[in-house]
Amino acid sequence: MIYRLLLSYRGTAYAGWQRQANGLAVQQVVEEALGRLLGHDVRVAASSRTDAGVHARGQVAHLEIARSLGARVLIRALVHGTNHFLPTDVRVLDAQEMAEGFHARRCATGKEYRYRMSRAPVISPLDAWFTAGLDRRVDLDKLRCAAERLVGRHDFAAFAKSGGSHSHAIRELWSVDVVVQGERVDVVFRGDGFLRGMVRSLVGALLEVGLGRLAEQELAAWLTGEPRGGAGRMVPAHGLVLQRVFYPDQWGGPELEARDAPETVPAL
Amino acid sequence: MIYRLLLSYRGTAYAGWQRQANGLAVQQVVEEALGRLLGHDVRVAASSRTDAGVHARGQVAHLEIARSLGARVLIRALVHGTNHFLPTDVRVLDAQEMAEGFHARRCATGKEYRYRMSRAPVISPLDAWFTAGLDRRVDLDKLRCAAERLVGRHDFAAFAKSGGSHSHAIRELWSVDVVVQGERVDVVFRGDGFLRGMVRSLVGALLEVGLGRLAEQELAAWLTGEPRGGAGRMVPAHGLVLQRVFYPDQWGGPELEARDAPETVPAL
Repeated sequence: MIYRLLLSYRGTAYAGWQRQANGLAVQQVVEEALGRLLGHDVRVAASSRTDAGVHARGQVAHLEIARSLGARVLIRALVHGTNHFLPTDVRVLDAQEMAEGFHARRCATGKEYRYRMSRAPVISPLDAWFTAGLDRRVDLDKLRCAAERLVGRHDFAAFAKSGGSHSHAIRELWSVDVVVQGERVDVVFRGDGFLRGMVRSLVGALLEVGLGRLAEQELAAWLTGEPRGGAGRMVPAHGLVLQRVFYPDQWGGPELEARDAPETVPAL
Repeated sequence: MIYRLLLSYRGTAYAGWQRQANGLAVQQVVEEALGRLLGHDVRVAASSRTDAGVHARGQVAHLEIARSLGARVLIRALVHGTNHFLPTDVRVLDAQEMAEGFHARRCATGKEYRYRMSRAPVISPLDAWFTAGLDRRVDLDKLRCAAERLVGRHDFAAFAKSGGSHSHAIRELWSVDVVVQGERVDVVFRGDGFLRGMVRSLVGALLEVGLGRLAEQELAAWLTGEPRGGAGRMVPAHGLVLQRVFYPDQWGGPELEARDAPETVPAL
């Protein structure tokens, strides 16, 4: 049987989602908790390999186990039982039995990432874990114009970290919204796929435009697959959250979205 | 010279604002940081003694020092210099030189507290530090009706923890708003003063009404100063945030409000 898990974690203490030789990965603590609950080794595959320090509000993963857990009550036991063995910064929010053929990464049609910044001179400790500082000199109108340029189908090779497993770098961004609320500035990306480090590189480039150090035309030129001269500035990991993963209706798409209240995205 | 400080902290690791024999208080770490910066002992007085585990987004405190720090640049040094010596869960957000006679507690005309809960079966680790669980059986319409009953000038003795330093328990609540957004339920209190434990006792009583265990009339009866039969249920500290402190215009009221984006309180 295949089970889909909805996961949320603070990435602060982790070397990212994917298991690796150095450092503790979220995948590892999830597999270990499931292993302790079910009494045998378990492998989970996630929709997205979040980087070290990146958070998730609605990461989706799946696991395959030999027997069916059956009724809804047993699935609830899977949720709470796994949480019992997880550290408090990683939680299973929900679980669902899936039909044959479901794969958390291959079936995903898109994702939403949010990058949060604040222009406050000092960031409140209530926000600091999820909020990067933002230079007050950044022109938000320029930032917004440049963000609109990113929407569409482009070759994002110039914005990928090496080490990604992609065969090509063509991706489609459905929307890139700059949401300003007081001192807080969120950049929300929705698209069909994201290369390794892509969101943080794009935000870095947007800030360069906002600071007047990079022309919007140069940014546009990089969207054709031309390699960049410099490595480009990548913004810090702790401002980034994987908000949700989209699936087609046949896989029950929206049902497994984060049940907790999404943060308001007010109209500008 | 008198300086007013705007402070924000995660209360998780602290025994509350006020210095005490057992446990580390926020006041102590702030006084120690200021002492290290200024080179002599410093005492600070805050508008509100937040309880153990309670957070603050906009606590206000003042200190008196013999010499003037003068120009704005030196005040900025006071902010960043103090933060240098503070643990990361406590921050000075802003500072301001005040005229003679200012006192953080005595000059305050009111405060805003927010109690945050979530009906989600599992609370995301991105929210869990500031969000208490909420029983799904609580009737939110009943909760809202009962909250409206609290507004006005009443004797809140039945909702005070013993040990408060108040001479009487008459306080005025200007508003009690229940803000529902998805699974998230905030109860926002604004009023001229709050007794020790009052917000958490009131939320506890509201939940009892929402669960049908307490009649709205009984709640109303307690607002006349009658002592309660039982101690009443007090909700956990970690859902509570001191959001802001109000001052009259002569003390520059709104200027020193938290500069960081307030969370949206959407219309219902």
